[in-house]
Amino acid sequence: MIRFGIMGAGNIARKFADAVSKVDRAVIAAVASKSTERAESFARQNSIPSFYGSYEEMLKRDDIDAVYIATTMNYHYENILECLKWDKHVLCEKCMVLSHREAEEVFALAKQKRLFLMECMWVRFLPKVQKVKQWIAEGRIGKLKLAQGNLGFNASFDPDSRMYSPALGGGALYDLGVYLIEVLSYFTDQKLTGIEPTVIRAATGVDETVNLNLRYGDYLVNAQCSIATKLPENGYLYGENGYIALEYLHLGNTVKLYDKDRKLVEEFDQGNANGFIYQVEEAVSCIENGKLESEVASHQMTLDCCKIFDKCFE
Amino acid sequence: MIRFGIMGAGNIARKFADAVSKVDRAVIAAVASKSTERAESFARQNSIPSFYGSYEEMLKRDDIDAVYIATTMNYHYENILECLKWDKHVLCEKCMVLSHREAEEVFALAKQKRLFLMECMWVRFLPKVQKVKQWIAEGRIGKLKLAQGNLGFNASFDPDSRMYSPALGGGALYDLGVYLIEVLSYFTDQKLTGIEPTVIRAATGVDETVNLNLRYGDYLVNAQCSIATKLPENGYLYGENGYIALEYLHLGNTVKLYDKDRKLVEEFDQGNANGFIYQVEEAVSCIENGKLESEVASHQMTLDCCKIFDKCFE
Repeated sequence: MIRFGIMGAGNIARKFADAVSKVDRAVIAAVASKSTERAESFARQNSIPSFYGSYEEMLKRDDIDAVYIATTMNYHYENILECLKWDKHVLCEKCMVLSHREAEEVFALAKQKRLFLMECMWVRFLPKVQKVKQWIAEGRIGKLKLAQGNLGFNASFDPDSRMYSPALGGGALYDLGVYLIEVLSYFTDQKLTGIEPTVIRAATGVDETVNLNLRYGDYLVNAQCSIATKLPENGYLYGENGYIALEYLHLGNTVKLYDKDRKLVEEFDQGNANGFIYQVEEAVSCIENGKLESEVASHQMTLDCCKIFDKCFE
Repeated sequence: MIRFGIMGAGNIARKFADAVSKVDRAVIAAVASKSTERAESFARQNSIPSFYGSYEEMLKRDDIDAVYIATTMNYHYENILECLKWDKHVLCEKCMVLSHREAEEVFALAKQKRLFLMECMWVRFLPKVQKVKQWIAEGRIGKLKLAQGNLGFNASFDPDSRMYSPALGGGALYDLGVYLIEVLSYFTDQKLTGIEPTVIRAATGVDETVNLNLRYGDYLVNAQCSIATKLPENGYLYGENGYIALEYLHLGNTVKLYDKDRKLVEEFDQGNANGFIYQVEEAVSCIENGKLESEVASHQMTLDCCKIFDKCFE
């Protein structure tokens, strides 16, 4: 049984707690927030036995195996270091950290302490995404050549908001681009060899709209994300003999396989479960088996993504 | 009445001849090919009164006002120079020329001789594309932020084929990318300020798959084209308050306007006429009115496109 502590008590923590309640061999043992009131209210609403108004109080408990970090992005780096200091395995919400240097540091420390550390790119674990991975491995669309994905909405401009404030880790890439990068890169085994971003900045300096080209050997990816325009939220994977559509990339339930004449060949529907369940199952299994990283959401995935961030913001 | 000569006697010349037959104040007076047999056969099939086995023989006729160049791309540059030498107005198939230097040279000469010269980007003249231009001008999707388009098919690799031979002007950009560049650039008045291409080359050196980012001020464009994978042939224009879908970008008849909740607001169907008619009407009108270029398919359009080619092939 893996006993989780949750750090942060917002909406995403609620989704995680709900997922854990549906997974065998895992339980939420405690929640901590900077506000005791928030922690208490969260614990009551989610049937969690303990709550803390300080992260350290929770972390020093010996009977907590792993921590799920659900704070805002700007705190992830220091939160991870604190969890590792107290010898906890860590699942950290995306974006895990904001630069390649930070990613290298936390992964090195986790390895040194033989602790599991994973960025919560929950979409990779979804049955629909695993189905697409399988279709590609089976050669259903032939050799993978090209991909395109987009995620965007029109946030009203407010310099102090989470989306537009640099201090809060605002911008389109951290909030939306991360999905495109980490999902579309998942379908190739080739290494990241090229990063070509075009960025429009908001008045606050954060990336408002990004048109990002990535190259993984001979597989090319375009990712478009924006906090200033609604995008259809689709992903397309193009192979020599057909293509695959991931409609509503991170929130949809179905994926579709087309042949080279644009004829629908197969459709897969994963149903409507809490999408966090699959990553919790993976993390629990990894921790139980003494693995330090997940093969699905590997350290390399996060390192590559952070390298892309660095290049986009240089 | 504008009297056209046609240079080259392939399928695209047939489509042009058919379009002219449906346009007032224009007629095909002659056709020339390097093969007299081909020219004769083409003339007979398309009810054209004269045919020639030499371009010069046709060009030296005083009663031909304008020439439509429908040869393969690698000959366009010399063909244009020859037409201008004989004081003919010129409509040249896309891609008009293969480099920015060539484009500057032919436009300068045409201006100097006060002759009309236009690249035949027929898609820009289509009623559906004009409707989209109008929607955007009316602010129907708000400020234009981002666009994405794709064109591709899987040509079998053959080093001597038109698609794969460098000598014949092969590659995805010249054949397909040109549409994406020249159509998607049409919806903004901002200047081209950035070109970021990612290119996969075939064994012959031509561009097999291209993932191209363009920047026109604060309007970003991604264009994906390939001769190694089938793409859906769609174009999307994203504005602050909605988006527009151009399905089957160059061959489809309808365009769709969506609001920011992805709800279909308006659909426009142009019907199924020969798409070349509209550009012929424009060219005839320009020549009759003594204009040296079309405002829809301007010299700048072609110059920008050639600048992009240069950057992709550098």
